[in-house]
Amino acid sequence: MKFISFERNGQASYGIVQEDRVLDLGAALGGRAPDLKSLIAQGLVTEAIALGKREQGSVALAEVRQLPVIPNPGKIICVGLNYGEHVRETGRETTESPALFVRFPDSQVAHGEAIVRPPESERLDYEGEIAIVIGKGGRRIAEDQAWNHIAGYACYNDGSIRDWQLATTQWTAGKNFWRTGGFGPWMVSADEIAPDQVMTLVTRLNGQEMQRTTTDKMIHGIPRQIAYVSSFVPLSPGDVIVTGTPGGVGAKRNPPVFMKDGDVVEIEVDAIGILRNPVRDESRAGA
Amino acid sequence: MKFISFERNGQASYGIVQEDRVLDLGAALGGRAPDLKSLIAQGLVTEAIALGKREQGSVALAEVRQLPVIPNPGKIICVGLNYGEHVRETGRETTESPALFVRFPDSQVAHGEAIVRPPESERLDYEGEIAIVIGKGGRRIAEDQAWNHIAGYACYNDGSIRDWQLATTQWTAGKNFWRTGGFGPWMVSADEIAPDQVMTLVTRLNGQEMQRTTTDKMIHGIPRQIAYVSSFVPLSPGDVIVTGTPGGVGAKRNPPVFMKDGDVVEIEVDAIGILRNPVRDESRAGA
Repeated sequence: MKFISFERNGQASYGIVQEDRVLDLGAALGGRAPDLKSLIAQGLVTEAIALGKREQGSVALAEVRQLPVIPNPGKIICVGLNYGEHVRETGRETTESPALFVRFPDSQVAHGEAIVRPPESERLDYEGEIAIVIGKGGRRIAEDQAWNHIAGYACYNDGSIRDWQLATTQWTAGKNFWRTGGFGPWMVSADEIAPDQVMTLVTRLNGQEMQRTTTDKMIHGIPRQIAYVSSFVPLSPGDVIVTGTPGGVGAKRNPPVFMKDGDVVEIEVDAIGILRNPVRDESRAGA
Repeated sequence: MKFISFERNGQASYGIVQEDRVLDLGAALGGRAPDLKSLIAQGLVTEAIALGKREQGSVALAEVRQLPVIPNPGKIICVGLNYGEHVRETGRETTESPALFVRFPDSQVAHGEAIVRPPESERLDYEGEIAIVIGKGGRRIAEDQAWNHIAGYACYNDGSIRDWQLATTQWTAGKNFWRTGGFGPWMVSADEIAPDQVMTLVTRLNGQEMQRTTTDKMIHGIPRQIAYVSSFVPLSPGDVIVTGTPGGVGAKRNPPVFMKDGDVVEIEVDAIGILRNPVRDESRAGA
C-alpha cells in the first residue's frame, strides 16, 4: 500500500492512497495513532494495510495537501558517495564505511510542493535517491535481520546547495537549506518490495534524464547501511535513511546544470512511483 | 537562574536549582509547559525566573535524576574547528564559514550520568565546549540581534569516537555514539551572562587539566554562529548550538590520551558551573 501524510481543512492526518482516493487513517483509527510515524511505532501498519484492502478511501487525493512522507522523523541520515559513478565524478574515494550526513525535517518538502532556491546561492542541485523508513527500531541490527526493520520505501530528492556544502569539510549547511529536499510521493510498504529487489532509479530535470542507476550498484547496500548506523545510534520507528545518489549530478556536468525557478524535477523509482517538484526562487515561493 | 530537566519517581519534569533544592516548574506551572523546551518556546522563562526569586524549591536536588539540559532538542548543531589551537593540532585549516556537524539527542547524557565507551572502539575522546540554547527562533537572524535569541548557556562534552569520526570525510558516526555527549549541569539563563562576556572554559580528566581557553578566542563568535546557521535553516526554541572545542583533545596528545572505564571528566565554565561525568564501558553501564 501507498502511505501518505497530508493536511486537509487545516488538519494534519495520514492515509492510504488508491488511485485518486485517500483512505483517511487518522480518522479511521481514531486516536490510536495521530500520525504515520506513530502508526509505524505502534506496529499498526499491517492492520492499516488490511483496512486498505477492505475499504476504499472517501477523500479525493486532489483535495488534500500532501506533507513530506514522514513530516517529523527523529533522524534523517543520508549516505554519501554510495554509487561508483558518483564517487568518480566527485574525484573522491570509496571508503570502507559509509559517509553519513544529516538532514533536518525543516529542509524537506512534500511531493508537488516547490523546492526552494534561496537568495544565498545559484548552485541548487538535485540528487535522486531512495529513502528507507525504519519500522522496527533497534541497536546493532545484524545485516541478515535488517530487512525486517524497514516499514517502507519512498523517493527522495536530496537537494543540495553546492557552494555551501563544500565551503568546509562538513556538508551540513549545503544539505539543510529550508525546503530543498523532496520526500514522496508516498511510502510503499515493505510487503510490496522484496528484500534485495533491484530497483531502477531515474532523475529527470524538465523531462530530460539526468541520472539513472539500479540499486544493485550501491557500494554499501541497504542491510549494511542499517547495520552500520544502528551500531552507533539506536534506530527508531519513522527514522529515515537516504541511501545515496548515482552519477550525473548537475554540479559535475560540463557545463554544470543547476536548478532554477520554473524547473520541474522528478525522481522516479520503478517500484515506488514518481516524486515531482517544481523549483521556485524563495522570493516567489511564499513562506 | 539555573534550569534543569529531571526525572523524579519515574516522572519527567524540569525546574530551577538553588543550592541543594529544586523548584519543580513542571508542577508549579501545571499543564502550561510540559518540559523545558516548551517553557522556552512559550516565552515563560522570565516568569519562571520571577517565581524562582519568590519561592524556594521543595525538592532535594539529590532526590532527582537529572536529564540532559534539553532532553529533546529539535536540532543539535555543533561547530567544529572554532579555536586556532585546535585547528592547528588537527592539521586542518581555518575556513571562512564554520564547519558544522550534527548530534542526535540519543547521543547525550546528563550531568552525573556515565559517558559510555562502546565495545566498537577504544578511542573515546573528550571535547569541552559551551552550548547555547536558543530562546526565540528565527530565520536569517542578524548578528547584532543574535544575543536576543539565546535562552541560556550550558557546558557540553562533545564526546567523540575518533576512529569512527575519521573513517570518512563526514564526522557523523563518531559524533553520535549512544550516550557519549555530556550536556549540563544546567542551563544558566541568558539574563545572567552579558552579551560577549568572556567565559573561561576548562576540561579536566581525572582532575588533570587538559583544555583551557577563553571564549574571546573563538574563530566564529556566537553571533556569527547564530546568523550562519539561521541563514539556511530556521532556528527554533530549544535548539542547541555547541560552539566548538579548544586545543588539547586527547587524540592529538603525545602520547594520545583516551577515556576509559573509571575515568571522571569535567567541563568547567566559570559563568556556568561544572559538568561532571564518569566514564563506563558499555558492558558495565547498563542500558
